[in-house]
This record gives sequence, C-alpha cells and structure tokens, in this order.
Amino acid sequence: MSTFTQHDPSRSIRAARGTEITAKSWQTEAPLRMLMNNLDPEVAERPEDLVVYGGTGRAARSWEAYDAITRTLENLEDNETLLVQSGKPVGVFTTNKWAPRVLIANSNLVGDWANWPEFRKLEAEELMMYGQMTAGSWIYIGTQGILQGTYETFAAVGRKLQAEGRLAAGAENEGPLAGTLTLTGGCGGMGGAQPLAVTLNDGACLIVDVDETRLRRRASKRYLDEVETDLDTAIAKVNQAKAERRGWSVGYVGNAAEVFGELLRRHNAGELTIDVVTDQTSAHDPLSYLPEGTSVEQWHAAAAADPEDFTLKAQASMAKQVRAMVEFQDAGAEVFDYGNSIRDEARTGGYDRAFEFPGFVPAYIRPLFCEGLGPFRWVALSGDPEDIRVTDEALKELFPENAHLHKWLDAAAERVEFEGLPARICWLGYGDRAKAGLLFNRLVAEGKVSAPIVIGRDHLDSGSVASPYRETEAMADGSDAIADWPLLNALTAASSGATWVSIHHGGGVGIGRSIHAGQVSVADGTELAAAKLEALLTNDPGMGVIRHVDAGYDRAHEVAAERGVRIPMAE
Amino acid sequence: MSTFTQHDPSRSIRAARGTEITAKSWQTEAPLRMLMNNLDPEVAERPEDLVVYGGTGRAARSWEAYDAITRTLENLEDNETLLVQSGKPVGVFTTNKWAPRVLIANSNLVGDWANWPEFRKLEAEELMMYGQMTAGSWIYIGTQGILQGTYETFAAVGRKLQAEGRLAAGAENEGPLAGTLTLTGGCGGMGGAQPLAVTLNDGACLIVDVDETRLRRRASKRYLDEVETDLDTAIAKVNQAKAERRGWSVGYVGNAAEVFGELLRRHNAGELTIDVVTDQTSAHDPLSYLPEGTSVEQWHAAAAADPEDFTLKAQASMAKQVRAMVEFQDAGAEVFDYGNSIRDEARTGGYDRAFEFPGFVPAYIRPLFCEGLGPFRWVALSGDPEDIRVTDEALKELFPENAHLHKWLDAAAERVEFEGLPARICWLGYGDRAKAGLLFNRLVAEGKVSAPIVIGRDHLDSGSVASPYRETEAMADGSDAIADWPLLNALTAASSGATWVSIHHGGGVGIGRSIHAGQVSVADGTELAAAKLEALLTNDPGMGVIRHVDAGYDRAHEVAAERGVRIPMAE
Ligand SMILES: NC(=O)c1ccc[n+]([C@@H]2O[C@H](COP(=O)([O-])OP(=O)(O)OC[C@H]3O[C@@H](n4cnc5c(N)ncnc54)[C@H](O)[C@@H]3O)[C@@H](O)[C@H]2O)c1
Ligand SMILES: NC(=O)c1ccc[n+]([C@@H]2O[C@H](COP(=O)([O-])OP(=O)(O)OC[C@H]3O[C@@H](n4cnc5c(N)ncnc54)[C@H](O)[C@@H]3O)[C@@H](O)[C@H]2O)c1
Repeated sequence: MSTFTQHDPSRSIRAARGTEITAKSWQTEAPLRMLMNNLDPEVAERPEDLVVYGGTGRAARSWEAYDAITRTLENLEDNETLLVQSGKPVGVFTTNKWAPRVLIANSNLVGDWANWPEFRKLEAEELMMYGQMTAGSWIYIGTQGILQGTYETFAAVGRKLQAEGRLAAGAENEGPLAGTLTLTGGCGGMGGAQPLAVTLNDGACLIVDVDETRLRRRASKRYLDEVETDLDTAIAKVNQAKAERRGWSVGYVGNAAEVFGELLRRHNAGELTIDVVTDQTSAHDPLSYLPEGTSVEQWHAAAAADPEDFTLKAQASMAKQVRAMVEFQDAGAEVFDYGNSIRDEARTGGYDRAFEFPGFVPAYIRPLFCEGLGPFRWVALSGDPEDIRVTDEALKELFPENAHLHKWLDAAAERVEFEGLPARICWLGYGDRAKAGLLFNRLVAEGKVSAPIVIGRDHLDSGSVASPYRETEAMADGSDAIADWPLLNALTAASSGATWVSIHHGGGVGIGRSIHAGQVSVADGTELAAAKLEALLTNDPGMGVIRHVDAGYDRAHEVAAERGVRIPMAE
Repeated sequence: MSTFTQHDPSRSIRAARGTEITAKSWQTEAPLRMLMNNLDPEVAERPEDLVVYGGTGRAARSWEAYDAITRTLENLEDNETLLVQSGKPVGVFTTNKWAPRVLIANSNLVGDWANWPEFRKLEAEELMMYGQMTAGSWIYIGTQGILQGTYETFAAVGRKLQAEGRLAAGAENEGPLAGTLTLTGGCGGMGGAQPLAVTLNDGACLIVDVDETRLRRRASKRYLDEVETDLDTAIAKVNQAKAERRGWSVGYVGNAAEVFGELLRRHNAGELTIDVVTDQTSAHDPLSYLPEGTSVEQWHAAAAADPEDFTLKAQASMAKQVRAMVEFQDAGAEVFDYGNSIRDEARTGGYDRAFEFPGFVPAYIRPLFCEGLGPFRWVALSGDPEDIRVTDEALKELFPENAHLHKWLDAAAERVEFEGLPARICWLGYGDRAKAGLLFNRLVAEGKVSAPIVIGRDHLDSGSVASPYRETEAMADGSDAIADWPLLNALTAASSGATWVSIHHGGGVGIGRSIHAGQVSVADGTELAAAKLEALLTNDPGMGVIRHVDAGYDRAHEVAAERGVRIPMAE
C-alpha cells in the first residue's frame, strides 16, 4: 500500500494513435489518451517525474496512481464516474450517461492552510499534488497555447488603439498592428513568442534581450525575423517595416534597462515613433533579470555569489526600465505589464510611479472575456495531422467573415509544429464555441476525420478563474477575490455534459492565489455528444458573460442582450 | 440596479402547503418552498434580515435577490439550471433532465483573501453573503437537527464505553448510556439539547448552568427533567436514576468552574461515579463565559466595562474547569470537547494539559463517518404532519432490526415540535440512505403521502466537509486541511441527480476554516426520481467511505469491502 514512486526514468508514455481503442468507448478512451499525451516526452517537461509543465504541474500523483487511473479508465462504463483527488484515483461511482466520466480536484486547501509551506508538507507526505492548470486536468497541448494567447493579446492592443482613434483603421485584409512599432524585452521560452505574435498581426517589433543566443534560437525557429547588434541598423529596419505596414521583427542584443531609456530619448527626439511598449524579461525572479554593469558571462556566478546584492542591483535596473516605460506612456505610447511582476520589482527598487501602467488582463483581455472569448482548443485522437487540417478548413468555412481567425489558422498551420497528439487552439466566444463543437461532431459522424476529437480549454478563461493578481486583477466592482465563480463554472460543466471536469487551486500564480476550473468534452459523432456539446459549449463561455455582467461591464451586458444570455436580476 | 434591501420588516414569508404548485414541476416547486421555509418566522432567527441561523447565515443576499430567485424558480423548465452566487441569482442555462435545477456557491474566497475582514468588506459592498451551512443552501429544518446530532454523539459515547469494556452491555431494549452518569455544563440554545439527548439514550445527566432561567426554560420544554439548587439533592437524584438504569436529567444552578472541581472531589471520594464529562458553555467567546466571582446580574455590565480583564478572568475560570475535566479523565471518566473551543481558551488561560482530551468528532463521530453515516433529513412539501408520520412508520418497517433508529423516531415523534414545514432527521449510512430515498419515492408514487418529499442533509456529513478544527480534526493521515474532498463531493452530487447542489466556505467554524458541500433531492414519485435518488444517495455517503478509506481508517476499509464501494488503488 505504501509504494509511492514519483521518479521512474524507465517509464516512457505515448498515447495510442488510430481507431483501435483499449477503453470501452471513445468517451473513456479520450481521457486515457489525453492523460498519456500529457506525459509524452514530446509534450511534458519532466515526464519521468510526471511533471508536464509550469514548475511541478503534474498529471498524476505517482506512477502507482497513474497505473490505477489508466487501469480504471480502460474498464470504465458509460454510466460510471472516476474520482481523482490531487492526481490519485479515489473512487468509482455509478452515475448516468449525461454525467462526466472523470471528476478531478487538485491542490485544494482550506483557506487558512492555503500556503506553500502547508502544501509542500502535504505533498511530501504523499497526500497532494500540484496540478497547475492543464497538467493535472489532462488537456495541455504544448507551446502552441502560449503563442496564440500572445497573438490575441497583441491583436487586442491594436484594436484598442484603433477604437481609441490613436491608430487609423487598416485595410480589410490587414492585421490590427499594421503600421505600428512595438518595443519589448525578453526573448526567452515564453517571451520569444512575442515577435511572431506581433508580426502575425502585421506589426513591426523590436525586441531587446541581453543574451544573443536566445535571440538566435528564436530566429532559427522563425519566431524572430533577424538579429541585430547595431542599434541604428535595427531602428532603420523596423522603421521601414512600419512605414510599409509590414510585419517584421528585429532582435537587438542589449540590456533593456539601458536600451529602453535610449529608445525613449530617440522617440522623444522624433527619430522613431514607438506605439506599443511591454516586457517579458523574467522579472518575476530578480536573479533571472540581468542588471546593468554585469555581463551575461558573469551573470550566474554573480547571482550565486551574493544573491541579495544581485537582487538590489536587478531591482534598481528594473526601476530604470520601468521608468522608461512609464515615460513612454507619458509620451503617448500604449504600455502594459505582461504578467511578469516587473511593476512590483521596480517599486521595490524605489520607483514610485511603477503601477501607472496596467496589467495585460484588465487592459486588453477583459473585453474579450466579456464576450466569453477565451482559449478554445481541440485534439485529434487519431494522431493524424490530416484531421487537424480538416478541422482548420471546416472552421474557416464556418466563420467565413472572421479574417482574424483565418489569419491565425493559416499561420498556425504553416508555422506550428505539433507536440504529441495533433492539436489546435484558437480564441472563440459565446455562441461560436458551440457552433465549432457541433461542427467537429458532424465531421466525426460523417467520417471526414478519422477518429473523435477532444475539445477543451485552458483554466485561464473568461468565467473559470478567480486570481486577483492576474485574470481577475482590478475587476470593475472589486470582486477580484470572490471564488464562487470558478466553483459554479465547474458545477455547470458537470451539469452540461462535459466528459471530464476539474477544480484546481494555485495554478499560474501559486498556492493561495487562485481557484480555477477546467472542462473537456469528446465529439464522438453521436447524437448524445451533439446534445452535450451544444449545452456545454454554450454554458461554459456563458459563465464568462454572466461573470462580467455581474461585475458591471457594459460590453458583457451588450453581449448578453444580443445573444440571449439570461440574467435573472434583470428579468 | 443599485437597489439593495437587506432589512425589510414588512416581509413575512411562509412556504405554500398542499398540492397546488406555482412552479412548473415539483422539481422546481421544491427549492422554491424550501427557500421560503428557511425564511419562515417559525424557522429563521431574523427573517426580516434574511438571516436563518448561525450568526448571519442567510438564505439570499437581498430581498431583490430573493424575489429574482423565486420568480426564476417559478418559471424554470425541467432542463434548465439556475445559478446562485452568494445568495444572488446570476444566470440560467439550458442543461438536461439529469442535471440539478439549482447550483449554489456561497462565501467562497481565494485562499490569501479568505479571512473575515476581506469577507466583511465584500459583504458591505453587496458582493457576497455568508451562507453558513444549510441557510444559504435552503435545507435548514430548525433545532431538530441539533437534538439528533447530540443524541447520536451520546449514543456513540455509550457504544464506545461498551466496546472498550468500560461499561457492561445493557439489555436489548436499553439505550447505550443505561447505567451511566454524564456531567456537562451549559444549557443554552444548543447545549440545552444535551440532557434530553442523554436521557433518550437512557443515561442520567447532571447539567450545570450559572443562569437558572436557562435551566427553567429547558425544563418547561421537556428538554430537562428538573432543576435543583442544592447539590446534595441533585447528586442523590442522578445517582438514583443511574442505579435504576433510567434516563433522568437534573439541572444544577452553579458555575461550572467551581462545580466541576467540587464534583471531581466527590467522585474521587466515592460519593458518586461520573462516567462521562463534557461541556457546552459558550466558551468560544470568552465574554459569554461567566468567570467565578462575578454574578449573573453583573455579567454583561462587567464584560462591557472591561472586556480584556473579563476575558482574562473567564480564561482563568475555563482553565480551572478544564483542569477538572482532565483530572476526571485521569480518574477514569470519558471526557471530550464538544465543539466550543474550551480547550484552546483554557490553554490561553495558562493550563498546559488542556488538549489532553479529544474533540468530539475524532472521538465518536469519525467511526460513524467511516460508514457514511451522517445527518439524513427529509421534509414533507405538503406541509402535512401526517406525511412525516407515514415516513416514520415506513422507515421503521424498512429497518426492523435497528432498535436505536426506532427509539429515536419514536422519541422525535413524541417530543419534537415541527418548525415550518414538517421534517424529520435521522442518521443513516451507506446503503441505507438509498433504501430510504427509494422508499419515500414509492410512498409518493403510491399516494401514501400527499405530496413529494424533499431529501437533504447537513453539510456536516461524512464526506462533504474539510474543517481542520472540527469535522476533519486529527485525521489519521494528517489530511485535515485538504479541500479536494468537498469539491469532489459537490461535483459528484451534480453528476448523480441532485436537484440542488451547493459549495460553501466558512460554515460552522468561520471564514478561512472550512469548505463544505450540500445536496438536496426531490422524491416526486417518478421513475426518473427513483434513478436519481438511488445514484445520489449511494454516491453521497460513498464519498464519506472513500474519504476515510483514503485516510487509512480500518472501519472504512471494512465497510467498502462489505458493501462494494470501489477503491481504484486497491483493484
Ligand atoms: N503573460 C503571461 O501570460 C505570462 C504567464 C506566465 C509567466 N509570464 C512571465 O513572463 C516572463 C518571461 O517568461 P519566459 O518563460 O520567457 O522566461 P525566460 O527565463 O525563458 O526568458 C527571460 C529572458 O529575459 C532575458 N533578460 C533577462 N534580463 C534582461 C535584461 N536586463 N534585458 C534584456 N533581457 C533580459 C533573458 O536573457 C531571457 O532570454 C516571466 O517573468 C514569466 O513569469 C507571463
Ligand atoms: N457540538 C457542536 O456541534 C457545536 C456546534 C456549534 C457550536 N457549538 C458550541 O457550543 C457552545 C454552546 O452553544 P449554545 O448555542 O448553547 O450557547 P448559548 O450562549 O445559548 O448558551 C451558553 C450557556 O452557557 C452558560 N454558561 C456560561 N458560563 C458558564 C459557567 N461559567 N458555568 C456554567 N454555565 C455557564 C450560559 O448561562 C448559557 O446558558 C458554543 O460555544 C458553540 O459555539 C457546538
């Protein structure tokens, strides 16, 4: 009973492909393959430790738990439900055909105990697991999700500039950043998606990173167009792209603390006009931000030798960089924090205007959330990339007028390499998600794709998360910390035909700071699946609409009125 | 939009009786009547403020919210689901006939914000409501619940003494406390159930309260048999009852801090033998505990004049009382804390052995929880007491061998006055709850009762609560604070045919200290209801069994094995 193996390098997991199933139906084969896919070495960061992504975000608590889950799923009937508690299967109950096949709760703690030390203690005692968001709920699809979220954020920036009359609307077929120049910092694992996200929106992008190897790596993978070490040349190139309203990205090797100030000087002198400024250096950890006066070569030795002194220096440099950002805002640019806590570090570093520019969610994403828009994703259980091609095409036909979506799907098809089972992500809102789900179910029924399609989303979605430092930062009514919403979201998913449903604590921002829910469904081509998909993919983004109606957002009120989302207090 | 009325003395709510319904079916008439019943002046503490019980435990956030809920329930279809966020209706979604008709989340906060000040702020901003346990989830049935829980606790005490050979097993028809004497303190609103609970178990009881009016009030309602002001007489009477193995209770007017010590001296001197010692003075609030040397008349003025000094005196007296309790334990008595925090106050008052006796849940209730036993309750929607009489009789026929249950049902029928809609409570475990639910559904189908029956439970149940200071205190594996379980419980209820499901935070022990779930179903006599009841009333107590299996309790393992509860890790 007390066997608990968390590290086992001999294990190598890969989901089955094709139409032969080992479970009793596709409704249970789907969670089986998706759990296995989360642990595919192509997908997971440390599969031998069951870690999928995001620090220690795990798919199962131990290898024994993993084996019990897969064994149970293989034998689960279509009126049975498996319960998973922090990555360990704890029960099987007889339910009904409308009920989820798997119910998951990961990392949840009573409030007074909701902190890292208590969590670590219970984790060490083998009683809990950190589920992150899509790791413990079996719907992670690799880095495609990051690219697309960044793409959507930059698209929203462009649309906001246009709506405010700070940017003329472009031609029909132009992306929302056409004719703009974006300045950003940090071209690492996540930040490296920025130049491609900007150019996919037809913007010009200058990205500053101290580490030339990071910029070269992005250029080799076509995330970045070119690398420059001469600032005048770099500026000339992005200026030209901007003038030609052409997507083009240039990486410049330098320290953002210095370069941002220098570019501000040139911007104010009229040498160039920077429209958008942000940053994704890894500011959340001061030892990972290189202060001025230290070379890349000295970096890690210096940080290790005197971490406190290094922290003070890094914070002073961040204060300098953030000062330049605030002054860019004074000078008319659009400036935002991209979720790396650089504002708080700069404030600690002594700069008191640090919080004068907003975080990215309140600034751009919340209007999308008001429409129930969020990261909708799907996976071809067949393993055949052709199935995703078919869904891409069918989706473009379903939404012929949505140029932004077409552009994304074309770019993704061209540029995104699949990791694990072929998958696609795109942001769809209230109404459209249900249409897409029903379309996929028809494609399965008609044999246009070779096997069922799994449909899910990130927990970072419009009505599924309470996280006062990120997704629910600065809600209009001050309701940032209220966690009733993600819990209602999970109960709604369980009541609307989801195949698996999860409630997690601490994803993204850490233990004590968020509660969020996930849901996944399976388009297996049956009529029952169609009925479930219609309800689930209407109600789930519907939660986003009503959550923002309740917080007082006009756009959500409009969407509810236009699309018939019911608001009892107003009836 | 900004109308928010929380106090309205003009409102007087009483649920409809009879078989005419205003909602579209009994599945929605049921939550409508139960919400209204929670606010019946016979039931609620402060109905004009929407407060049902337990401090500020509310049924709805405002009168506007109440009106919107009732309006929506009246029109809700049998494939629609109403969402309630901290007492306010926020959405209606199309789901399916197996889904709950109402989903409720009350008072939930992200961990770092899960404290009273943050909650009070959001409450003042009209964004939240405190739901307690059954207040905000519309299944409070008055004080009957308290009496029965106390009765079960004392029954468990007696059985434990017998199992440990400290008490000879009684005759077949005798209660488990026959031949014992229990000493306790505090005969107030909740503590006043103690003497009747002891005598229902055929024990003798001596209860000490400083306030004679409290004792007289209990005596007038037959909760207490008689009041004595002379200690020798009081002792003689309970000694005689004990010798005759007869249930009898005597209230003695005195300060427990003094009297417990004096009784210990006499116990050690062989003048009487006290078998069980506990206390339900309101020790959780030191200003509500009267210290030695202060008279009842001076009490409130003294507490108000110098609360800090009063607190110190009260804690010193509690230390003295708890010292006597520990020494009773040393002298062989069974001693336990009855959920009023007197141990912690005594420790603060300088007594370092205070925690040497256990809380009541780990001591007596947990073995019941291991069997999925907990407070099962039902309500006659007809409003006709005859319907409850019919269910009582039918239940006795269904479980002919359960003498303990028969005794409770007979006593309840004889002694309990209904408050609001007629209701009954009794503790049933895994297997028996489903049988009882199906029985009730048959009684409705066959017209043996005049209208459908609502079936619910307290959130204090075997698998539905995480509360490290009470229900999950001192779990065998240290998993006290893990909140995955109540969340899985709510998801399971939503997946098993419950008519309404709720997730609450902070009930019982306060904000930051508990997360718990509730479920209610409706036996309307249909086949669909039968299928739902069978699943729900199997799976819900099943959560209690698997939660205790997972924590390593042998009894839960036995129950799972005997009754076929599936444990995936062991398959
Ligand atoms: N927007 C979001 O949704 C979101 C979500 C999670 C995390 N983040 C945050 O984004 C940040 C970046 O993440 P990542 O995965 O790309 O990190 P990473 O560590 O892979 O990359 C950071 C990059 O910053 C560069 N850098 C460090 N100091 C610099 C300086 N002074 N000037 C210029 N460049 C410098 C490094 O050379 C490196 O290339 C992190 O703080 C992360 O927490 C954002
Ligand atoms: N067991 C449970 O499940 C449970 C649940 C919730 C609360 N409680 C706790 O039980 C306690 C009692 O609740 P209640 O509703 O009966 O409270 P109450 O305030 O109605 O009654 C308390 C009684 O204690 C008496 N008292 C005070 N000081 C005394 C002293 N020194 N000696 C003798 N008597 C004294 C008072 O006169 C009063 O009659 C509270 O602390 C409550 O929090 C128990």
